[in-house]
Amino acid sequence: MQAFTDLLSEVDAEIAKLGINKPPHGLYEPIEYVLSLGGKRIRPLLCLSACQLYNDDYRRAMPAALAIEMFHNFTLLHDDIMDNAPVRRNKPTVHVRWDANTAILSGDAMMIKAYQLLSQADTGNFAMLLDTFSRTAIEVCEGQQYDIEYSRRDDVTLDEYMEMIRLKTSALISGAMRMGAIIGGAPSADIESLSEFAENIGLAFQLQDDLLDTYGDEATFGKAIGGDIMENKKTCLLISAMQNANAQQKKELNYWISVQNPARDAKIAAVRSVYDALSVRELTQSRIDELFDKAISVLNRMDISIEGKIFFGNFAKTLVKRSR
Amino acid sequence: MQAFTDLLSEVDAEIAKLGINKPPHGLYEPIEYVLSLGGKRIRPLLCLSACQLYNDDYRRAMPAALAIEMFHNFTLLHDDIMDNAPVRRNKPTVHVRWDANTAILSGDAMMIKAYQLLSQADTGNFAMLLDTFSRTAIEVCEGQQYDIEYSRRDDVTLDEYMEMIRLKTSALISGAMRMGAIIGGAPSADIESLSEFAENIGLAFQLQDDLLDTYGDEATFGKAIGGDIMENKKTCLLISAMQNANAQQKKELNYWISVQNPARDAKIAAVRSVYDALSVRELTQSRIDELFDKAISVLNRMDISIEGKIFFGNFAKTLVKRSR
Repeated sequence: MQAFTDLLSEVDAEIAKLGINKPPHGLYEPIEYVLSLGGKRIRPLLCLSACQLYNDDYRRAMPAALAIEMFHNFTLLHDDIMDNAPVRRNKPTVHVRWDANTAILSGDAMMIKAYQLLSQADTGNFAMLLDTFSRTAIEVCEGQQYDIEYSRRDDVTLDEYMEMIRLKTSALISGAMRMGAIIGGAPSADIESLSEFAENIGLAFQLQDDLLDTYGDEATFGKAIGGDIMENKKTCLLISAMQNANAQQKKELNYWISVQNPARDAKIAAVRSVYDALSVRELTQSRIDELFDKAISVLNRMDISIEGKIFFGNFAKTLVKRSR
Repeated sequence: MQAFTDLLSEVDAEIAKLGINKPPHGLYEPIEYVLSLGGKRIRPLLCLSACQLYNDDYRRAMPAALAIEMFHNFTLLHDDIMDNAPVRRNKPTVHVRWDANTAILSGDAMMIKAYQLLSQADTGNFAMLLDTFSRTAIEVCEGQQYDIEYSRRDDVTLDEYMEMIRLKTSALISGAMRMGAIIGGAPSADIESLSEFAENIGLAFQLQDDLLDTYGDEATFGKAIGGDIMENKKTCLLISAMQNANAQQKKELNYWISVQNPARDAKIAAVRSVYDALSVRELTQSRIDELFDKAISVLNRMDISIEGKIFFGNFAKTLVKRSR
């Protein structure tokens, strides 16, 4: 199978070749900007590799891979407006560099472009591909909606949180693999298994993100540690802590959640010390390991080449056992 | 052919049956709300009737007709955020009744829903249908972008304005007919002719809108006359006036454009009196008539039934020769 780094170069080259920017530049420049910011390109890579598992001509999946990356970047664009996020990948977000209206409209155009790319896919089952793409896309919107709603609620359960990240993050990762497998001509049982594999990896990936934001190494992680704590973000860590805290610990957490303009270091240290007392880090890590193991066992049960199993096993590892 | 009023009832019934609202209600309720506000349903009706011209089973075009209406309402939702519009069809806009984030996200979901509806279309040429839909959709975005840009410019020409409304308004009207014709199995020459017919009607429709906003009868028009003048909107009227004005008239127009908090009646009367002196109403009316005549002559040259010609001729009349 084609190595990951090769696939990544191909995806980046294809994105550079898209030739997005044309008049009206006010619409297309922000799209080019957002795509040029890079990123891990996880979703297109999963799409191409899933295709490759069944078809040497993995490039057949390139239009779908690009469609998925375009859609993913569209969600980032609109999410950043909703979250009022000033920075994405160390650069100003579109609504900051241009304005909110530009971010809305360029995002809209990106979604249409995503469908245009998808329609170029070379597959005998385009209806299934299109259906998968749209179902996945609507799940991402539903996940974002729950994310917004949960940010206003104080009683979000861990189950609700897991379902939210399944929709918001996992669905597209899973959908990317599903689409690649469809284009590669995989048997339907395999499509389901790969999708289950990816869904679990996607969940573990998001939990790892939560973990790194509080327990990562600042130098490796590439951004300031403790951002989630400062924003009172209802991550797996905060929800687990709230669920297991005694009255005193709950009081302490609630104090830091409600206090206005706290000293950054003080708040992060205090919340982390409650987390530590409740073994929140270990609890989350064991959840990640469980999801990872589940994904690998689904993969191992599949009737695919050893090479394929190693390939996706390694990919899963780089996503879940990462430090940045 | 099925009468227009019958088709309208069918479209409204189908929209009511869509069953949009499910959890998360925060995402889907605004969609149901916006669709329930009604409207002329021009685009789905054109889609169904174009299909009907070639196929008695016009209901084949229903999914595409609904997709187009869904897309149109999505654009209204996002446009209303960008324009900061408080009211749509006499009801609060979504970003006012809920908030901007809701309007962004529900709008996004509507676009995906539009593609989901489209994918149910019963046609032998789905690729062409999908391509037409996406191309049309991206044109609408481009039109909105130009509209935003032109609102900040003082030197917009009439040609630029016409191209802007072609993209923003006419493209979807034309696309609706094109898609209906594709589903009906029309010969490609007919698809082009119907599309040309609709494009001209769409342009005339928009110019008529401009005209009514300044010269309509308030009671019939259903909203206050002079809104465009108060907002200094660069309509066909203002651009024509600026183009033909002498130094004194230009000075007068520029005074009213730049004066802060003018008395409403005074500003409208003053600008209208410049328009009157320059025969702007008549100039615009003759432009509308020209576009209408062009559309009708395209229709008349087509090799379709007399009944069809009468049907679309009447439709064109209701759109262009309207007083509200």
